[in-house]
Amino acid sequence: MKLHGYFRSSAAYRVRIALNLKGLSADHLPHHLRKGEQRDPAYLAINPQGLVPTLQNDAGAILTQSLAIIEWLDETYPEPPLVPKDPLRRAKVRAFAMAIACDTHPVQNSKVLARLRELGLPEEQVTDWAARVNREGLEACERLIAGEPGPFCFGAAPTMADLCLVPQLGNARRFGVDVAAFPRLLKAEAAARNIKAFADAAPERQADAE
Amino acid sequence: MKLHGYFRSSAAYRVRIALNLKGLSADHLPHHLRKGEQRDPAYLAINPQGLVPTLQNDAGAILTQSLAIIEWLDETYPEPPLVPKDPLRRAKVRAFAMAIACDTHPVQNSKVLARLRELGLPEEQVTDWAARVNREGLEACERLIAGEPGPFCFGAAPTMADLCLVPQLGNARRFGVDVAAFPRLLKAEAAARNIKAFADAAPERQADAE
Repeated sequence: MKLHGYFRSSAAYRVRIALNLKGLSADHLPHHLRKGEQRDPAYLAINPQGLVPTLQNDAGAILTQSLAIIEWLDETYPEPPLVPKDPLRRAKVRAFAMAIACDTHPVQNSKVLARLRELGLPEEQVTDWAARVNREGLEACERLIAGEPGPFCFGAAPTMADLCLVPQLGNARRFGVDVAAFPRLLKAEAAARNIKAFADAAPERQADAE
Repeated sequence: MKLHGYFRSSAAYRVRIALNLKGLSADHLPHHLRKGEQRDPAYLAINPQGLVPTLQNDAGAILTQSLAIIEWLDETYPEPPLVPKDPLRRAKVRAFAMAIACDTHPVQNSKVLARLRELGLPEEQVTDWAARVNREGLEACERLIAGEPGPFCFGAAPTMADLCLVPQLGNARRFGVDVAAFPRLLKAEAAARNIKAFADAAPERQADAE
């Protein structure tokens, strides 16, 4: 398989964790987002959104959108499961993942922040925007799993929720958010950090890291 | 079941279509987003993000995030299916839905636009922002299904992709986007318009419509 990504992309980071947990290897093809390599016509031909990640499977099929890729990996390589079997539990895990992947990450990604700068906003307001989006998203996430014993977001093993949480906490810190306000999320993150699949997927461990 | 929504919310609109297609009825509980009713503490207790929709099933379980709700409905009430059986086709449908639900809608929703106004941007720039986000999202969607015969996004019957597309096209028009640039998307929308489940879910047909 081939994974088109970028070391700092939290969406690509989610998929890297999933591949590692499943024990799958992939050729990592970096696209430097700050240099605009994701808008290269050859890349747009496989990912019309010009976003990372894109996964190409061994048969050459092209998959886009990190959560769709993770669900496909889970359906195709079921062990260990990343989404619970019970429909209501599945819905809880997906809703947590989407609170990050729909309502948090896309509102603070590099494309949105670049647009705010284009509109003339000073860097301080751009950072405030990103910090606020992260803070609000993580506050909601903290409450979504307040009743879950853990240590992971949803029980004794990592799920798609943890795959979204760990990269997002990294973003939040980068924008200066005081993540100590989210003890339940930090408990899940600490559990994840003990797992090699998570550690190996971290941005600073990637070949294209700067 | 109870569906907490708002007539103009495109995320709630997706779930209304899903319920109608499945032949399920729900009590519709409107929360007036412009009046801030989604930030009422009683509502935040069931939806910590303060977003609509929220679905409460007959057993009282609470489900949030429109795509997670739709997947749960599809797993619990399988006919007619809203996600294909084949894993790769499922991934395609989900990726299209997420191109809208992750990368388009949340970057142009009322919360983000209100924040741009708070930062002092004039109304013209706020509308330009929303139009650009819609245009770029729909351009990508048009390319994602360019090779699909249709008439719906992915074949002869509606899927979760169409449930996301129809509300988003409504948003795009509201922000002045020339949707004639997206003939394949309009073909899918036209097919959906012939289905009562879609028509009955339209914003202007809801009890709280203004």
